[in-house]
Amino acid sequence: MSESGRPPSASEVTVTHLVLPGDANRLGTCFGGRVLYWMDMAAALAASRHCRGLAVTASLDSVDFLRPIRVGEAVHLRARVTATGRTSMDVEVEAHAEDLATGERRHVSTAYFAFVAVDPGGRPVPVPPVAPGTEEELRRQRDGEARRRARLARLGRLEGPPNVC
Amino acid sequence: MSESGRPPSASEVTVTHLVLPGDANRLGTCFGGRVLYWMDMAAALAASRHCRGLAVTASLDSVDFLRPIRVGEAVHLRARVTATGRTSMDVEVEAHAEDLATGERRHVSTAYFAFVAVDPGGRPVPVPPVAPGTEEELRRQRDGEARRRARLARLGRLEGPPNVC
Amino acid sequence: MSESGRPPSASEVTVTHLVLPGDANRLGTCFGGRVLYWMDMAAALAASRHCRGLAVTASLDSVDFLRPIRVGEAVHLRARVTATGRTSMDVEVEAHAEDLATGERRHVSTAYFAFVAVDPGGRPVPVPPVAPGTEEELRRQRDGEARRRARLARLGRLEGPPNVC
Amino acid sequence: MSESGRPPSASEVTVTHLVLPGDANRLGTCFGGRVLYWMDMAAALAASRHCRGLAVTASLDSVDFLRPIRVGEAVHLRARVTATGRTSMDVEVEAHAEDLATGERRHVSTAYFAFVAVDPGGRPVPVPPVAPGTEEELRRQRDGEARRRARLARLGRLEGPPNVC
Amino acid sequence: MSESGRPPSASEVTVTHLVLPGDANRLGTCFGGRVLYWMDMAAALAASRHCRGLAVTASLDSVDFLRPIRVGEAVHLRARVTATGRTSMDVEVEAHAEDLATGERRHVSTAYFAFVAVDPGGRPVPVPPVAPGTEEELRRQRDGEARRRARLARLGRLEGPPNVC
Amino acid sequence: MSESGRPPSASEVTVTHLVLPGDANRLGTCFGGRVLYWMDMAAALAASRHCRGLAVTASLDSVDFLRPIRVGEAVHLRARVTATGRTSMDVEVEAHAEDLATGERRHVSTAYFAFVAVDPGGRPVPVPPVAPGTEEELRRQRDGEARRRARLARLGRLEGPPNVC
Repeated sequence: MSESGRPPSASEVTVTHLVLPGDANRLGTCFGGRVLYWMDMAAALAASRHCRGLAVTASLDSVDFLRPIRVGEAVHLRARVTATGRTSMDVEVEAHAEDLATGERRHVSTAYFAFVAVDPGGRPVPVPPVAPGTEEELRRQRDGEARRRARLARLGRLEGPPNVC
Repeated sequence: MSESGRPPSASEVTVTHLVLPGDANRLGTCFGGRVLYWMDMAAALAASRHCRGLAVTASLDSVDFLRPIRVGEAVHLRARVTATGRTSMDVEVEAHAEDLATGERRHVSTAYFAFVAVDPGGRPVPVPPVAPGTEEELRRQRDGEARRRARLARLGRLEGPPNVC
Repeated sequence: MSESGRPPSASEVTVTHLVLPGDANRLGTCFGGRVLYWMDMAAALAASRHCRGLAVTASLDSVDFLRPIRVGEAVHLRARVTATGRTSMDVEVEAHAEDLATGERRHVSTAYFAFVAVDPGGRPVPVPPVAPGTEEELRRQRDGEARRRARLARLGRLEGPPNVC
Repeated sequence: MSESGRPPSASEVTVTHLVLPGDANRLGTCFGGRVLYWMDMAAALAASRHCRGLAVTASLDSVDFLRPIRVGEAVHLRARVTATGRTSMDVEVEAHAEDLATGERRHVSTAYFAFVAVDPGGRPVPVPPVAPGTEEELRRQRDGEARRRARLARLGRLEGPPNVC
Repeated sequence: MSESGRPPSASEVTVTHLVLPGDANRLGTCFGGRVLYWMDMAAALAASRHCRGLAVTASLDSVDFLRPIRVGEAVHLRARVTATGRTSMDVEVEAHAEDLATGERRHVSTAYFAFVAVDPGGRPVPVPPVAPGTEEELRRQRDGEARRRARLARLGRLEGPPNVC
Repeated sequence: MSESGRPPSASEVTVTHLVLPGDANRLGTCFGGRVLYWMDMAAALAASRHCRGLAVTASLDSVDFLRPIRVGEAVHLRARVTATGRTSMDVEVEAHAEDLATGERRHVSTAYFAFVAVDPGGRPVPVPPVAPGTEEELRRQRDGEARRRARLARLGRLEGPPNVC
């Protein structure tokens, strides 16, 4: 399976949530932690799709919440695998909020996760490479590989044990 | 707002859920009620998008669950407004399950909801018409209108009070 | 077990929920999807009771939400098996809302589900027949059988594979 | 309203839950805390019904869990107001588990709650008295009053401030 | 393991929750049932820590809710094993509410649970004794033993079957 | 309030969760997104305590999940404010997993959040400075300030609008 790559579009998934009162603080804005949870679930879907198996969260790069999201708005999370290591996948997740009363959408956050493909015993297994098909996808792959190198440098190694690439 | 229609594509939304152990019975298959809940939430998003305001569930047409969905699979719910009455919207929701290990997708159910647009006091308000742009969209509109007529006949009237079209 | 029938009263169950803020939209009225979820759970209890085993949702007939239910009200769901096929059960669920401040109850919806009895491997298994004991129960059984025939006609067959009767 | 009493049967409510995997520990048996939560919700319904308004939990008498409840079983909670103080209500909750595969029911616990009726500002308000109609109901009322006296003795007073009868 | 005792401090755990809108009634105050659920979870953690295995809830002594807790406040639950029987543990849980805007804390409730240590088959297993190290801990142990004797008297025996000691 | 600082210990909070089946994937290990959600809630508590008001998540620095956490284990999250800007707070959250069967604890992750104090209208408000009292606290403050500068550089400004420090 590993010899032929898969395009990022094959793993792309969009998850939409309606922000309910139970997701929000007393200001009526969505908890950051809820958005992070939704992002991780979207990223897990994209990673599982790419590797056609189980994948676990290994890392999350720095993420900024640019604007608050209000109760009653929709949140769209688009996730896709942009780059791969031997057993790890770089997953980009873009979050947009939509004001359903106006149709206006705004970018609220982008996060980069690393997931590791694992077998049913939890041991890392190789993943098929990403096969970028467009200039844009190539650029995303290079960025994802840079993030992966930064991650490995941060953790002090080049190819790590379970859960760290 | 009501003079110019909106295309079905403008309200279309896809919501994806990963089926977790808490969503399933002892067979490891997803509760029908959970799928109905997810379908209603997806339909509410599409209806809110179309009418740019609040919308409440008025009816659900008969729905069949053709195949079970297992824990660990993804469920994709695609919802769109296909036809409109004065204050009501016909929303089609198609559910597909995806086996993440093979990438195989299968159709598991299609449901047709009626939503009513309401103001903050819960009173029905007019909705913009649907403007089908393709042959396919025209066909869906005609089907949606037939469902609306059947609903109204079932309820014994042509234009009803709050919550019934 | 299949030679002697069971009366509808043996499967009847009443489930009551208090509508909490997390169950409601910004109007303070309960999501239709939440009511559908509660209805399915009540129907599953009645079906499991009748067949003394596992039962999965196969179909839901058209359902109308006649009146909104508000946060702070109680919802009562009465479910019972009204008719049976070889492996399927027709389950009626009546939903009433109760204003706890006045004690007033109002009918908000009635739904008809089909459930299929299954073994631990998910294969359909025969169910004991319903044994109506009163005129009212006989009438409900005839109505349930008519719904079952309509369902099978809709699906284009008389006795189907798993999950469709 | 307070001059004429209400019979215990007017407040009686039965709530049924299906025990799901998310309600259970690794033994597959339901958390005691989940049962306590369900009991409190059932008691709140009965208390709200009796006083036709808001009611908050003030006390819970000692409660024993006589037998474990397993995932896949149903739990039936029957709650009713058995006795009243000026602003407080004694609510009995009986919990039975039902093995859906055999229909066998067993008593798993009985709890006695005290609820206080409150206005929208949270201040205690008088409740109508209980009007027992049978010998059995009279006995339950006397027991409930004994529990109330024990509660007040425990708290060192005869008629207390908000939330303590 | 049972010959040498463990100090209460070894099992002590503090669990903090933020009260969200979904935890509260229309007064904006936390459900008693939610607090009971949180208390049970904290007690289960302390009991599991003491016996280094599974523990199930057997009993809860009378508990009073002295003051309401509001949405937006924090609830701190401190749990510790204070006394032991052969297979049972007495667990004290103190609940304090904290107004995050002022830093003021107030005692809202104290509950005493009995947990029983069980093996993976659900059968009671012996627990190591508590080894109080301070005068205060000795006093708590004596109180816990008195509660245990009262419990056993209530249940009409001195050392009971699963789930009752 | 802003002239005198508050020690990090005044905002420190420890939140403990028991990992339940509903928190885990099919490997029986806790979702990364669930841990992120719990971390954010713990950080929100510490931030609210420090500023004695509302605080919203603005950023999360890169975070690595060093080891998986299993169902049945406890997760302890210790959060404290380590450094402050004009309206922002740097919050460190350390996550440890505890195997309840052995008492063994292991470090699973450390995350650094930025929170912004806001008034009820969602506008940033000044926060009191942190007053480190020990060498260790001074070191943490310097590290937190370095993270804050990196964050602001990443966002291209020195003191930003709502939600970005």
